Amino acid sequence: MTVYDIITKKKRGEALSRDEVRCFVKGYTEGAIPDYQVSALLMAICLNGMNDDETCELTMAIAESGDTVDLSEFGALTADKHSTGGVGDKTTLIVAPLAAALGCKVAKMSGRGLGHTGGTVDKLESFPGYRVTLSEDDFRRQVREIGVAVIGQSGNLAPADKKLYALRDVTATVDSVPLITSSIMGKKLPSGAKSIVLDVKYGSGAFMKTPEEAEILAENMVKIGRLAGRNTAALITNMDTPLGFAVGNTLEVCEAIATLRGEGPPDLAEISISLAGAMAHLTLGIAYEVAVERARKLLYSGAALKKFKEWISAQGGDVSFIDNPDKFISAKYKKELKCGTDGYISAMDAEKIGLAAMELGAGRKTKDSEIDYSAGIILAKKTGDKVNAGDTLATLYSSKYELIKEAEEALLDAYKFSDKPREKEKLIYKILL
Amino acid sequence: MTVYDIITKKKRGEALSRDEVRCFVKGYTEGAIPDYQVSALLMAICLNGMNDDETCELTMAIAESGDTVDLSEFGALTADKHSTGGVGDKTTLIVAPLAAALGCKVAKMSGRGLGHTGGTVDKLESFPGYRVTLSEDDFRRQVREIGVAVIGQSGNLAPADKKLYALRDVTATVDSVPLITSSIMGKKLPSGAKSIVLDVKYGSGAFMKTPEEAEILAENMVKIGRLAGRNTAALITNMDTPLGFAVGNTLEVCEAIATLRGEGPPDLAEISISLAGAMAHLTLGIAYEVAVERARKLLYSGAALKKFKEWISAQGGDVSFIDNPDKFISAKYKKELKCGTDGYISAMDAEKIGLAAMELGAGRKTKDSEIDYSAGIILAKKTGDKVNAGDTLATLYSSKYELIKEAEEALLDAYKFSDKPREKEKLIYKILL
Repeated sequence: MTVYDIITKKKRGEALSRDEVRCFVKGYTEGAIPDYQVSALLMAICLNGMNDDETCELTMAIAESGDTVDLSEFGALTADKHSTGGVGDKTTLIVAPLAAALGCKVAKMSGRGLGHTGGTVDKLESFPGYRVTLSEDDFRRQVREIGVAVIGQSGNLAPADKKLYALRDVTATVDSVPLITSSIMGKKLPSGAKSIVLDVKYGSGAFMKTPEEAEILAENMVKIGRLAGRNTAALITNMDTPLGFAVGNTLEVCEAIATLRGEGPPDLAEISISLAGAMAHLTLGIAYEVAVERARKLLYSGAALKKFKEWISAQGGDVSFIDNPDKFISAKYKKELKCGTDGYISAMDAEKIGLAAMELGAGRKTKDSEIDYSAGIILAKKTGDKVNAGDTLATLYSSKYELIKEAEEALLDAYKFSDKPREKEKLIYKILL
Repeated sequence: MTVYDIITKKKRGEALSRDEVRCFVKGYTEGAIPDYQVSALLMAICLNGMNDDETCELTMAIAESGDTVDLSEFGALTADKHSTGGVGDKTTLIVAPLAAALGCKVAKMSGRGLGHTGGTVDKLESFPGYRVTLSEDDFRRQVREIGVAVIGQSGNLAPADKKLYALRDVTATVDSVPLITSSIMGKKLPSGAKSIVLDVKYGSGAFMKTPEEAEILAENMVKIGRLAGRNTAALITNMDTPLGFAVGNTLEVCEAIATLRGEGPPDLAEISISLAGAMAHLTLGIAYEVAVERARKLLYSGAALKKFKEWISAQGGDVSFIDNPDKFISAKYKKELKCGTDGYISAMDAEKIGLAAMELGAGRKTKDSEIDYSAGIILAKKTGDKVNAGDTLATLYSSKYELIKEAEEALLDAYKFSDKPREKEKLIYKILL
């Protein structure tokens, strides 16, 4: 078997065997197969697809290309969540303690972000003292005792995905359902959780633009997760506007804290409750609706906030910031974006809002960029809201004054106005259990 | 415009603009675009195709990537031929002097081969003294005075094709009609002939396996040749069995000489007459049928043989070998392959026969292999012939005894026998004028 034969087979639209998939993933990861052969194969996969068996093999080959975490000591209670990425998505900060309060074991490794804002780990670093690195013993003890620990990705997790993704990124071969599925699930499986809940987003701020596209991806990921022996569920959710009002690291942490107090934006609370409910449904075997109601109670009773404090404290973070979020460093400069017209916000481009936040310093443009934790945007109005000329649409925050002007223009460009009201989009399009 | 956008466009099945095609060919040839992006694009072209405009732009971009030969001093009389490659194809040796005898100007650059046997230039080197390199002045003078000169490819002809072909060869992106067309025509156009006759082969010894596939390729090449301002015609011919009986460099030269004497195999004579007729039709503006009849007369009158001698002599070759082919060095070892059964030859795999000839030393396995000019195969029987056990099927020639055994097995493997006779395939499937 040569990689030439494998490319030929996929070019003809035939299914690759287990050995063929393993051969190219192993050969590429080890450097024995050159980029130019793999990119031809990736394009053939983009255009001719992969069936479930092939996608599953590709996922497993990626998952097994590096270290795997053994969480079997926690039995069937381990649950993880994954979002396909959106703007203002701070759900992990709420879902992780909420799921732990429900009885799940959340032993989570999370990435730093390259994009609009930092990743979950970056956001957590807003807490002075928070340790993103724990020894394996400490990590396991914390999960055992508190039910939740969130650390940075360490070790050599799915190196095949790192190499394949970097190549897809420069060869226009990102948008393929089997390749996206194997990339996401190939990274998720080695993290060891028995249950996985996926938040598959669609809309202007997501990779998938329509709910139908998102559903195809979600179905595929759920199928592959189950083939790989994990309880898997997916929520298909709207990302036409940012989730909540805050976009930016510390700003999002504050909004998450407010939500854990029961005072957060309804959309953020709703998705968080649904995700945690799905995790409890999968791990505890209770009906989804029952699990969701239990999650809602634990959020509004303060139980999730209590769990959040235990977690942050166990990882060295200063919990006084939770009781008094004013202690967080706020941005040196802020500016309100005013509305120039009367009417209704008919659409917001969440992607553009995310990019404006990145311009302000909230996200990394390159791997080596430094994050301005306090930078970002607080939206005052969202799609469907009535506005009058002079109203504040949003407030921009940055440590550097000169960044605000450009970001302001970019942000304004994200809004569309109309003189008629419009119905709000459904937040959760579908749930695949 | 970035190469990423160009790949994306082709992946979506959209047509590339002139600028986009030029951008990627130029960028790749100059080394500014890496292999892995071009191989993804090539796969997208393989699977999504290219329309006539795109193929024409790609052909022109390849043609213009290096030197071009200006043959305008010969007016509209210059004619070239190109074969898509077969086994035992020695037609250039016959067609070039025959077309010159008809009044065409044949100023031909020919390659060395990598494959079953050497290329035309290798075959010509069987003549002691033959110069494959001429100064430009000498080359032009010879074409002016004799009407024919055949030299090795020199200079920097279509460097874009060299790079693209090498990449296609290792990424399973060879079999694409627009890519084959642009590769062949992109190399042919800069050679400068006003008229081009293509011999597009199909069958077991050709790249295209069916006449229908060959016809699609031929139509595409003719269209692109005409769009590029050249008179273009194509013959679609059968390559299920080798052309003539000889496979190997000196063996083929001897068979070509026999054909120029009017004593050659009918299939080889027929194709040669048709190709030269098509060249005369395009350059002289006479009806194809008339041109073919004129070509037939010139072949059987000895006029083409006279022209052949003038040509070989002008390039320093010893013409006494033409009158007395026994002077050619013959292989040290020869062995007859005997038939083990009674019946009919129902099929021959021309590709396998070619490979057996290569095993004997007739062809180059790698760029640096040395050719054994005397090595090769003379077929005694061909498809459709009646055979009896003990009959000689073919004779193998080599300078190295140890090569014969393995080649003999490979050669025998090329035959299929049956107890019923079968109709012979048509030699010329179609002519596109």
